[in-house]
Amino acid sequence: MREQAIYHKPETQYAYALSKNRVALRLRTAKEDAPAVQVIYGGKYDFAKVRISAPMRLACSDRLFHYYTAELELDDVRLVYVFALTEGGKTYYYSEDGLTETFDFTLSYYNAFQLAYLNEADLHVPVGWMQDARFYQIFIDRFARGNFQKDDSYINLPWGERPTPKSFAGGDLKGIAQELSYLKELGVNALYLTPVFRSVSNHKYDTADYYQIDEMFGGEADFSNLIARAHAAGFRIVLDAVFNHVSEKCVQFQDALQKGRRSQYFDWFLIDGDKVDAHKVNYACFAACDYMPKWNTSNTQVQDYLIGVALHYMKKYKIDGWRLDVSDEASHAFWRRLRAAVKEERADCVIIGENWHDANAYLHGDQYDSIMNYAFTKACLDVFALGALNAQGFAQKLNELLMRNTDTVNGMMLNLLDSHDTHRFLTQVGGNTQKLECALAVLYCFVGAPCIYYGTEIGMEGGYDPDCRRTMDWEKAEKRPPLWHLVQELAALKREERALHGTAAKIWAEGDLLLIERGAKERLRLTVNFGKKSIPLAKGILCTNARGALGQDMFMIERKEGGT
Amino acid sequence: MREQAIYHKPETQYAYALSKNRVALRLRTAKEDAPAVQVIYGGKYDFAKVRISAPMRLACSDRLFHYYTAELELDDVRLVYVFALTEGGKTYYYSEDGLTETFDFTLSYYNAFQLAYLNEADLHVPVGWMQDARFYQIFIDRFARGNFQKDDSYINLPWGERPTPKSFAGGDLKGIAQELSYLKELGVNALYLTPVFRSVSNHKYDTADYYQIDEMFGGEADFSNLIARAHAAGFRIVLDAVFNHVSEKCVQFQDALQKGRRSQYFDWFLIDGDKVDAHKVNYACFAACDYMPKWNTSNTQVQDYLIGVALHYMKKYKIDGWRLDVSDEASHAFWRRLRAAVKEERADCVIIGENWHDANAYLHGDQYDSIMNYAFTKACLDVFALGALNAQGFAQKLNELLMRNTDTVNGMMLNLLDSHDTHRFLTQVGGNTQKLECALAVLYCFVGAPCIYYGTEIGMEGGYDPDCRRTMDWEKAEKRPPLWHLVQELAALKREERALHGTAAKIWAEGDLLLIERGAKERLRLTVNFGKKSIPLAKGILCTNARGALGQDMFMIERKEGGT
Repeated sequence: MREQAIYHKPETQYAYALSKNRVALRLRTAKEDAPAVQVIYGGKYDFAKVRISAPMRLACSDRLFHYYTAELELDDVRLVYVFALTEGGKTYYYSEDGLTETFDFTLSYYNAFQLAYLNEADLHVPVGWMQDARFYQIFIDRFARGNFQKDDSYINLPWGERPTPKSFAGGDLKGIAQELSYLKELGVNALYLTPVFRSVSNHKYDTADYYQIDEMFGGEADFSNLIARAHAAGFRIVLDAVFNHVSEKCVQFQDALQKGRRSQYFDWFLIDGDKVDAHKVNYACFAACDYMPKWNTSNTQVQDYLIGVALHYMKKYKIDGWRLDVSDEASHAFWRRLRAAVKEERADCVIIGENWHDANAYLHGDQYDSIMNYAFTKACLDVFALGALNAQGFAQKLNELLMRNTDTVNGMMLNLLDSHDTHRFLTQVGGNTQKLECALAVLYCFVGAPCIYYGTEIGMEGGYDPDCRRTMDWEKAEKRPPLWHLVQELAALKREERALHGTAAKIWAEGDLLLIERGAKERLRLTVNFGKKSIPLAKGILCTNARGALGQDMFMIERKEGGT
Repeated sequence: MREQAIYHKPETQYAYALSKNRVALRLRTAKEDAPAVQVIYGGKYDFAKVRISAPMRLACSDRLFHYYTAELELDDVRLVYVFALTEGGKTYYYSEDGLTETFDFTLSYYNAFQLAYLNEADLHVPVGWMQDARFYQIFIDRFARGNFQKDDSYINLPWGERPTPKSFAGGDLKGIAQELSYLKELGVNALYLTPVFRSVSNHKYDTADYYQIDEMFGGEADFSNLIARAHAAGFRIVLDAVFNHVSEKCVQFQDALQKGRRSQYFDWFLIDGDKVDAHKVNYACFAACDYMPKWNTSNTQVQDYLIGVALHYMKKYKIDGWRLDVSDEASHAFWRRLRAAVKEERADCVIIGENWHDANAYLHGDQYDSIMNYAFTKACLDVFALGALNAQGFAQKLNELLMRNTDTVNGMMLNLLDSHDTHRFLTQVGGNTQKLECALAVLYCFVGAPCIYYGTEIGMEGGYDPDCRRTMDWEKAEKRPPLWHLVQELAALKREERALHGTAAKIWAEGDLLLIERGAKERLRLTVNFGKKSIPLAKGILCTNARGALGQDMFMIERKEGGT
């Protein structure tokens, strides 16, 4: 047995509470090993005497490892356990002391694994509506213009022309409201809006005033109207919380700028010295943008202020979630307090971080619910655009990503192919619509919530910012191209099929085929063909971009009977 | 290269902030591999263009793995990095995508490792005085009686006789105060007192009233006097916070018992149903002790109440730390709030959890500072008492334990050989004083704060509770046996030698010899001989139990020159 490959750690994604008396366990082993695995468990205070054994299931494999899983229902929620791994007739025990041939249960209080008590306050409770959420990300200035009465002197980009970093196309909240029926028809049910707070830029990630809805976007009245109409039509609204940094134009920074250390807001920022030196840029800011000073999120006054902002929009507009901009750079301490306040106000308000990397340290149930899953994006790029992964490598990578976090988190992941911060996916795959279609099928069939960037459904293209922020092509949208109908079909499946709602997933490859099977009792199977050889379509398929046979860069989704 | 053995994870003990602009990194590899390791690092927003390489040092090895470490001083605290491992002329990169032959730095925003920002609020700041803390644990009823005027009708155990679970021997706070000069002479400087709050039991882990000092122990006056005298004499005082559970006699449980769900305290406990059923014991309690109902530490009112208790003793008596009883069973949410309140009141108040198992999930700097290091206890038992480890296995295990947590935590670990909850160590080693002496040398030379259980210095013996709680043998103590002088010598070394104050440590075995070398510039080396072959003593040794030569179960501590 390859002991160096074995991994388990309590109170991580390898051992966590699913409810007040139910836990999920994982054990990792080397892929070359395939032992029969049992978990031997019991109560903390009588484990030396009373023990139960339960088999663990080989649930998935990635490039290097096998993952065994079990769910346990507990009478005594003071769980202690060790693993028994049997291979070639020989059994080994795996505990905090590693792999051993014997295990002394009378001394287990020293070295068994444990989840010492399942406390309710530490439970990561899933946001129910995320189960069938189909997200649509809107970059507001570029999606749709609805208000033609407003002062439009700021608009400098004719709709349809290519944007520059300083372009204003006039898209606004009224435009979104007018297109709710379009979005409803498409089948999405959750809108993630880039920032709405007052700001001078087109993207509005440099907030001048959190308490005002930007006038270019239509101000408070149009925002209020959009939220009301969207909620009435069954949409969830997730706003962009730009809490890592702010605009230099905000009152607090202006005060610090003018008064230096005498300003009550001086310590709200991270200023090196006794006063702001705009020339030297002696303060922390976002990236290299001196006009976006970074908040000092270690400061509890700043935390209080920003939490106040979050609660204001939750109370006043009943918004349904927050996407946290540049969340990896703000303090854990702040996110913990924000979460506590947000969840107290409304337990099913989802909190989604913008962490591009493994965000496990933020996803223990005390900070975010999930993140924008850019690691999923990268995997899709690797297989569809860069040729860095084949079907098998892709299957392994998807499993690896699922093993990075708890299933609770996985079920709330915001999965995406692209966003306002990346090239458009279709452009990355050289305009190959079939590849985009396959990627969309994976997106909608993977564990978590699919999120498409506006215009994906009509095959909009674009390179890196600002090119990925072109104006929505409504002429093309009016024509409802085949891609549009495919997205509609995928969204309908995500809505209706229970197999796509939980977190049960089996992902593997057979030759050039990627297979994702979802669900426990009711099951759906997605097959994507990465190879040149065509294979016949299944009977009674639910969704496909293939005609007659499954050629390269084609997929099918079929219903499967019986449990996995 | 054995990729399955490689491990790294940001925002864990493998990558953490030491200060606002300094980070510590670790990388684990298989022990069969010994690559040259570099960390390639830079700022998050220009990593594609500007990178620095720094070598990592093979710092230690355990049974299975090598651990490479580096400390980086950062200009840009938005750190991103990958590792380069070179072996046999071939270089591999290690990133979030695993081991690869090439690494595309232009796409590193997807898959490099990162510590995205070092925020001050997330820093785990070491408690300075823990660097040279020498703890002495006192089980109050059994240590010393000072008050002979008190109502002693509760005393049922003549001093010197063997205790039962219900014995009261009369030890009290005045007794401790009177023995401060004894403790000072011995050289300890921090007292960890088992609970002092009002309770009917001898151990007082069933608190009846947190706001009263137990009358058997001398009440508030004697407590106040002890603290004042101890502080004046340079002692730190750590109290036992029994916050996981309480006595059934406390007012809150009595109210819940009488009023059922109508009681304002009903939800302060974990009661199944609408009223307490004392017969069925339908409420959560400590272990199987129905007289110790468990607090519902998920309840914020309970959290507030217990935090109030902690702050009361901190404000009124300026106590220096808290040992958290059964801390693994209370909620993380509670410990986070308690830490915030305690550290705001006084940053150098140490918080030590009672977690017998790997407590990494509590030791990220947001909950405890450290734990009672029972894994260290077990390692000492394995090598000295059970014969389960030899010198090499012991060295590997000690390194493994250091790699479980950050060095910040390691430096504050409460290391112990035994306590009121275990057999006495001397009894475990069959009364072999030489073994105890060697274990004490390891205890005082290991990274962290040594804690001896009262009477260890005079070789007191005892089996499991209640036998490990015998009355202190003052007659023997008066004679200052050789063991006493050895503890005194070890404590003096810990006090005076800077090599023992930081966390720098190199631990390895040579044949039957265990070697622990401490310090960076000034160095001390402990050698323990587990073999039968004698070896000559070094010249100018600082401390030993050997006479002439280092035989089995003997040790020496010597000063070494030059950096490691």
